[in-house]
Order: sequence, then C-alpha cells, then structure tokens
Amino acid sequence: MTTMPHWLTKQAELSPHVKAIETPQGEVETFRSLQERSEAFARKMAHLGIKKGDHIGVFATNSTSMIVCIHALSYLGAVGVFLNIRLTAHELMYQIKDADVTYVLTNQQDDERVEELEKHIPVYDFSHVNKQPTKQIDVQSEIHLNDVYTIMYTSGTTGAPKGVMHTYGNHWWSAVGSALNLKLHESDKWAAPLPLFHVGGFSICMRSVIYGMPIYLLEKFSVEEMHEAILHKHVTIASVVTIMAEKLLKKLGENTYPETFRCMLLGGGAAPKSLLEQGKKRQVPIVQTYGLTETSSQFATLQSSDAMRKIGSSGKPLFPGQLKIMTPDNQGIGEIIVKGPMVTNGYYQKEAISKRSIQEGWLYTGDVGRLDDEGFLYVYERRSDLIISGGENIYPSEIEETIKEVPGVAEVTVVGVEDSTWGSVPVACVVSKDKYVTEKYILEAIEPFLASYKVPKRIYFIAETPRNATNKIMRHVLQEEIKKGHIT
Amino acid sequence: MTTMPHWLTKQAELSPHVKAIETPQGEVETFRSLQERSEAFARKMAHLGIKKGDHIGVFATNSTSMIVCIHALSYLGAVGVFLNIRLTAHELMYQIKDADVTYVLTNQQDDERVEELEKHIPVYDFSHVNKQPTKQIDVQSEIHLNDVYTIMYTSGTTGAPKGVMHTYGNHWWSAVGSALNLKLHESDKWAAPLPLFHVGGFSICMRSVIYGMPIYLLEKFSVEEMHEAILHKHVTIASVVTIMAEKLLKKLGENTYPETFRCMLLGGGAAPKSLLEQGKKRQVPIVQTYGLTETSSQFATLQSSDAMRKIGSSGKPLFPGQLKIMTPDNQGIGEIIVKGPMVTNGYYQKEAISKRSIQEGWLYTGDVGRLDDEGFLYVYERRSDLIISGGENIYPSEIEETIKEVPGVAEVTVVGVEDSTWGSVPVACVVSKDKYVTEKYILEAIEPFLASYKVPKRIYFIAETPRNATNKIMRHVLQEEIKKGHIT
Repeated sequence: MTTMPHWLTKQAELSPHVKAIETPQGEVETFRSLQERSEAFARKMAHLGIKKGDHIGVFATNSTSMIVCIHALSYLGAVGVFLNIRLTAHELMYQIKDADVTYVLTNQQDDERVEELEKHIPVYDFSHVNKQPTKQIDVQSEIHLNDVYTIMYTSGTTGAPKGVMHTYGNHWWSAVGSALNLKLHESDKWAAPLPLFHVGGFSICMRSVIYGMPIYLLEKFSVEEMHEAILHKHVTIASVVTIMAEKLLKKLGENTYPETFRCMLLGGGAAPKSLLEQGKKRQVPIVQTYGLTETSSQFATLQSSDAMRKIGSSGKPLFPGQLKIMTPDNQGIGEIIVKGPMVTNGYYQKEAISKRSIQEGWLYTGDVGRLDDEGFLYVYERRSDLIISGGENIYPSEIEETIKEVPGVAEVTVVGVEDSTWGSVPVACVVSKDKYVTEKYILEAIEPFLASYKVPKRIYFIAETPRNATNKIMRHVLQEEIKKGHIT
Repeated sequence: MTTMPHWLTKQAELSPHVKAIETPQGEVETFRSLQERSEAFARKMAHLGIKKGDHIGVFATNSTSMIVCIHALSYLGAVGVFLNIRLTAHELMYQIKDADVTYVLTNQQDDERVEELEKHIPVYDFSHVNKQPTKQIDVQSEIHLNDVYTIMYTSGTTGAPKGVMHTYGNHWWSAVGSALNLKLHESDKWAAPLPLFHVGGFSICMRSVIYGMPIYLLEKFSVEEMHEAILHKHVTIASVVTIMAEKLLKKLGENTYPETFRCMLLGGGAAPKSLLEQGKKRQVPIVQTYGLTETSSQFATLQSSDAMRKIGSSGKPLFPGQLKIMTPDNQGIGEIIVKGPMVTNGYYQKEAISKRSIQEGWLYTGDVGRLDDEGFLYVYERRSDLIISGGENIYPSEIEETIKEVPGVAEVTVVGVEDSTWGSVPVACVVSKDKYVTEKYILEAIEPFLASYKVPKRIYFIAETPRNATNKIMRHVLQEEIKKGHIT
C-alpha cells in the first residue's frame, strides 16, 4: 500500500504563500491559510461527533468553504458523499441511505429540501460547524492511496443510481495523468466553473493541491465571470462543458484570448463540430476529453499539439491508462473499455454490479467509439441511451422508473432529443391505460421525485412502444419519429 | 498492486514522432524507433536464453544501445544489475555473485576486465545480441509497480557493498516527484552527462520515457559538449555534480546561458558556496538536490524560485516524500531520515541490514543535516565518513577492508581530504607491523581490488589510531592532523 504525506499539509509546507484559491469576488486563500482552515474545520467536525470512517454527505454549491470541507474530510479520514445540488429531497434521501451517510454538511441553509432531510438525518450548515470549538484529535498526517475518499452517484442502463467509490489513489493518478498530458507550468491557474460535487469539478480541486496551483473558483458558471477570468485574471486552463464553450465563443466574438490561456478542456459529451471549428478560427485551444465518474474525471484527452489536426477526437488515454474497443481486432466501432489506476474499484455495496462492470481491471463503459489508425479515440455516442443535457448526465432508466409508478401509465420510454440550448433534453413516450392520463397529470405526479433537469420537456402519447425481434425497445425509432414530426 | 501500461510502449503510442534520445554526435531516436529497437533487443536477448526474472549485469558506458538495453530488460521482465564501469574485475565479480547475475551485457568489448569476467559468466557485447535472431515471445505489455526493475550497489559504514533494489514504482514516483517540483514544459530536454549506471543518470532515462521528453545523452561528461548543448541544442535541464558545474561556469566566463536553460540540477554532495554564488552572479539556475541510491535519485530539491534566496540548501523533500531530523524535536542538527514511495524496500538478500536501515518505512540515511525555520534542508555532511570525489561516492570501509588484508598492516583508517580538482579524495592512515610495509607496497597490493578512484592518494604511516573513550576511531582528528601537516 502506497503511503504519502497528507497532500494539503505537504503543499502548505512546500508553497505556503502560493495562492490555492481565487474567486471572482476577490477571495484568496494561500495553501498555508487553506491548510489552517481545513485542519481547524476537521477539528470542529470532530467536536460534532464526526470521526474517521464516517460517510458525510456534502450538499453544497462551489465555495471556498466547500473546498475547506473537502480537505477537512481527508484530515478526519472520513468519506465524502457528494450530492448533486439539483436533486429533489426524495432523490437525495435515496443516495443518503444508500451510501450509509450519517451527517450532511451544507451551505444551503434556507432550502426546503434541507428541512426535509433534517427529518431523517443531522444536517449542519458550514457556518454552524465553524461556530463549534475545536476538538483535540490526531488529524491524518499521511494519505494511504488505497483508502476511499469520495463517493459520487451515477446511474446505469437499468436500476437505481450507484455510488462510485474513488480512492485517494484514483484522484492522485488522475491528477498525475493529466499533468503528464497537459504538462505543468509555474504560472498555471485552473478555472472551475463546474460543480465540485461532480468529478469534473472535484478533480480540479485535487490538481490544485497536488500541483501547488491556484484554482479559480466560480460559484456557478457565468459567461461574464469566465470571460473576464480568461482575459484578465491569468487563468491558463479552464474545464468546461459544451454549452459553456459555446457561450464563451459567442461572447469572444471576433476577438481572441491571451496566448497564456493554453487549454479549454472540454468534457461532458461529444462537442458539435461547428463549435470546434469556431474555436479553431478564434485560436481558442479547445481540447476535447473523454471521462466518466468511474474514471475519476478525464481518461482520454487530446494533446494541445493535436487539437487542431484531430478535431472531433477525444485524443488518447492518459499515460497511466489503457483503452480498448470491444471488437474482435480492436478496430471499427464498438464498446469502449478502460483500465488504469484512476478507474474505480467499484460501486458502494453493489458487488454484483461491480463485478459485472469491471472485469480483470477493465471497466465496461457502455460507451461506443472507435480508434483511428493513429490511435486517436472518437466517441460516437455515450452509453446508447445516455442523455447529456448542459453537462449533466441524464439516465432514461431513472426517469422511466419514476413515470412507471404513475397510475394509468402502461409503458414509458425516455429518449433524448436535440435542443439548441442544452444540446439534448429528455422527452417521454407514454402508452397510457386511460384517457385521464395527460401530460400535466404525469408532470405533477413525478415532480417531487425528479430534479427539474431530468423532468421530460414533453410527454408524448403513443399507441405502442416500438420493439425489435428480441423485444428490445428501439429508442432510435422513437427519436426519428419525433424528429420527423410523426409523433406529436 | 498498481498496474499500468508498459512505459515505452505507451509513450511510443502517445508521442511516436517526439525525440526520445539525442546525442552530440547527431544520433536521434524517436519514441517509436526506440520502442521498436528495445522490443527487438528483448526478443534477441530471449534468443540467447535470457528470460523473465533473470538478473542481468549491465556493464556499459552511456550510449543509445545502453538505453535500448535498459528498456529491453523491462520488456522481458528481467532485472538490471548496473555495474560501475570503473570497478576492477574483482569488485565486479563480487557484485555479480552477490546479485545472482546470470548474464552480463556490455559495450566494453576490448576491456581486459571483460576477459576476466568471461571466465565465470556469459558476457555478451550489445553488438553480439543485435546479431541474434528474434525469438517470438510475449513481451511485457504492462508494468507492475511492485516489481523490481534495477539493482545498484552502494556501501555502508561497515561491511561489503549492498545491492539497492529499485521497483518500477520507486522510479515512477521519483520521476513524478521531480515533475511536480520542477514542473514540466513542452519544450523540456534533459541533458545526462552522468553515467546511467548510477541512479542519478538512470533516473533521467526514466523521466524521458514517462514525460515523453528527449534525453540529451553524453557518453561521458565533456565541458565542451555540455556547454554547446546548453548554448545551442535547446537543453532546458541538466543534471551535474559539483566538478561539472565548476568547469561549466569557468567555460561560461562572463557570458550567460539562454533563458530557456531553466535548471542545472546539482547533486552528489554539498556544493562549495563560491560555486553557488558564482552561479547566482552569472544567472545560472543552479538547483541543489539531495538524494541517495536508496531514494532512487533526488529526494529533496530546491525549487527554482527559491534557488537564489536559499543558497546552500537542498530544498524540501519532493511532494511524495517525508523527511525528519533525528533530534528530539526535529530541530537542530541530526541524522536525516526519509520515507516515501521512491525509497527502496531494501538491499538484495540482506534482510537483517535492510531491517536495521529501514524502520516503519523510514530509511536511516546516516547523513547529517538540519531544517531551517521554513523547512529547508541543509545537509551538513554526508554519512560522517562518506567521501564524495568528483560525484562518485567512496566508502572508507570498503578501502579499509581491502588494505587490512595486506600482510604487515595492523590497522588502517581511510578519510577524505580536500582536493582542488575532485572536491575530496581518500587517503589512508596505516599502523604497520613491520618496516617493509611501504606506501608503494600497499598500493601494489590493493590495485587489483579497488577501482582507481578509490585508491588512496596517499598512505600515511601513524604510530597509533586515535580513538575515543568508547574505542571509536576519531576520523576528524586524523583529518585535522593531516590538514595541519602534523601527519606526513
């Protein structure tokens, strides 16, 4: 088992005066001050009864306090269960129970969902924790790479959301793999407009402490703040999803960004070619990447030097990673499987599913792609049914399970349809048992159970669900019919 | 156990056309061509009967072929035992036997020591291997970080030389630790004028394949070639020992090096302050480092940004490493102990010594130093008796053991004395039993057994060895007496 010094303690020793966090509001933390705040926060959490090995729900929007909380978890040796801020109380409680969470920490004081959660579990606001006295405990001075640090939820083709476990090692190898690919400059500053509760945002926080590099932290994406950050705040790298890149390019207009802005790392699903070409025209170094919650963020990334030559590709797997296409000869189009020390060991308390998904170290992603003759990855579609909407992953199965529960619904199929704003949005095709089942009726019934971004933008009523010979639903038929206007 | 793709195969996939090796003679290998040559070399070695797990002596001077051999060992899964080119046949045979070496590979065709070795063990010239047909074997496609890759010899305060085992993981973590400290630039090119059979040179070869960075390889140090490399061959980093840095600064005179030359990494013992100050004056970014064979090269290194402010310091331990001073409060001057994933697991087949040297992951270095109030390491002296002569470590015990065997010698103590060319050189203080024991007599007797750089530059005859109350030899008394001219 590999052991190393605690990352934040070590970075505070190496780079005490280097900025660890900057925000558009002018907040600044150095590695020394972040270390002091985080260790103190851990001791305050300890005073509330939180201890090593506990599973702590974190229900928060991006903030310096959230990063303090993230590091405090590692000082305690507690596991962070990161909850999507957009979920309903019902969805949150599912994950809280599933992950054996014993306390929830939040910065969402006046949220009615918090009131709902409080009926079942202790929920403490960050400010409440900060008011506690510190308890004299031995905080972790070392990190064991095999220990679990975070749990983040994702869904599958069938069944309920599953908690992806990340060890410290998974996060470490992800950060190192990224550095070997994008290199490391003394002047690097990485902008995080993505939520830290998703692995795409969280991983920036890890790179910051491992590299000794400032994170430029946005509470949430704002095109004005991001534009300003790249133009005037010396940001050199930014992680974005398609919709953010589109807005930034529109804002940029005929201008260009400073040359020091060396990478716009684009994740969260295939990018429209028009976006990549516009980026090329404006000399914005858009670098496409492919990753999953299970791979602790990026797994394959285009090198800057290939960005323009291999437009549309997600590059090659990072140095520690291996990737294969599940065809007889690793050629042509097939399922993408991946292996490496940044790949999760499995889903929390889902041993059977974990064993099916990860075989001899290879994770079966369900995503479809091919490698070109130089070994560059082109992702054709994320898991055949996955809907990526403004960077959020939406799993039809989860919506279908909810709508099926509505009385009067016989069958339901959820598919993604193109949307000019979000890339893709979910719609539902329902076979009803009775006439009283209307769009409004269904939407009202499911509202308490689904985060708003998952709620279908339209409910279509169809006479029959199209199925193939093996009785499998033909989602693409529904998508085409909707596109052609045959289903209304 | 952490598994990753084979480093060279992976880098050949990521950066096929990037230069892996450049030499002053204009030789160039790309990662693709180096990969092809190395894999072919492994298959040719296999044809000679070399197989996975074998211990292979490598007795070679720096050359592209030697790097090919280094990677071929990893394709076979064989262990490389790296032999110092300056040793006598007698010293070589000791290491060969001790490390259970079954074959020796060399580029020293016409060397009489090779003829001597051939009496005991198969010795193949690289050119002989290259003439073999290739054997169809499965070469290693993955690397397991726990596997042993190299063995390199070092000596201790007492006893014979010991084989330090390095796993792939030790070399990996060393390379990553260095990158996090010195950062990684797209344009980096690292000059290696140090022998690859020492860990200081070998580690550059590892960084090259892990970073995807060219190594600028010198057969041996030449001030003209190094000067030219920095001035005109776009070298950005160079590893040197004191004597090399001094010669380079002398050659540089009143001029300066290009700004792109960002680091002269100075290892191999404490540097004279005058050198560091002269470097400062000429704006040569001399960065002092502290490392041992046991730490797989650098363990602590000054960051460039602190180079001028903390002159004389070896900086702070690299990110994955921990360092303590063995005093009751980690303050003041004491023995340096180190821990981290780049630290060896032990000495080959020396379990008792390994257990004594490495306790709970902490390696007791025997070196003496202190940390200043900002945590910067100052190394006062390497292991109290260690003599560092032109970058080579010389262990008095080894010389003493040899001289003790000479008939007529009663007692012998070897100490280092200052030398304007080499920094330090060994001299011996002998108590003889008889008058026929002269300097010439002793030198002739030990010559077959000691590499020339280890042979004492003077043999002094003394009436009695100075010892303290506990009967321990007072080496410093001898050193002072010699300095004052009281011993002649």
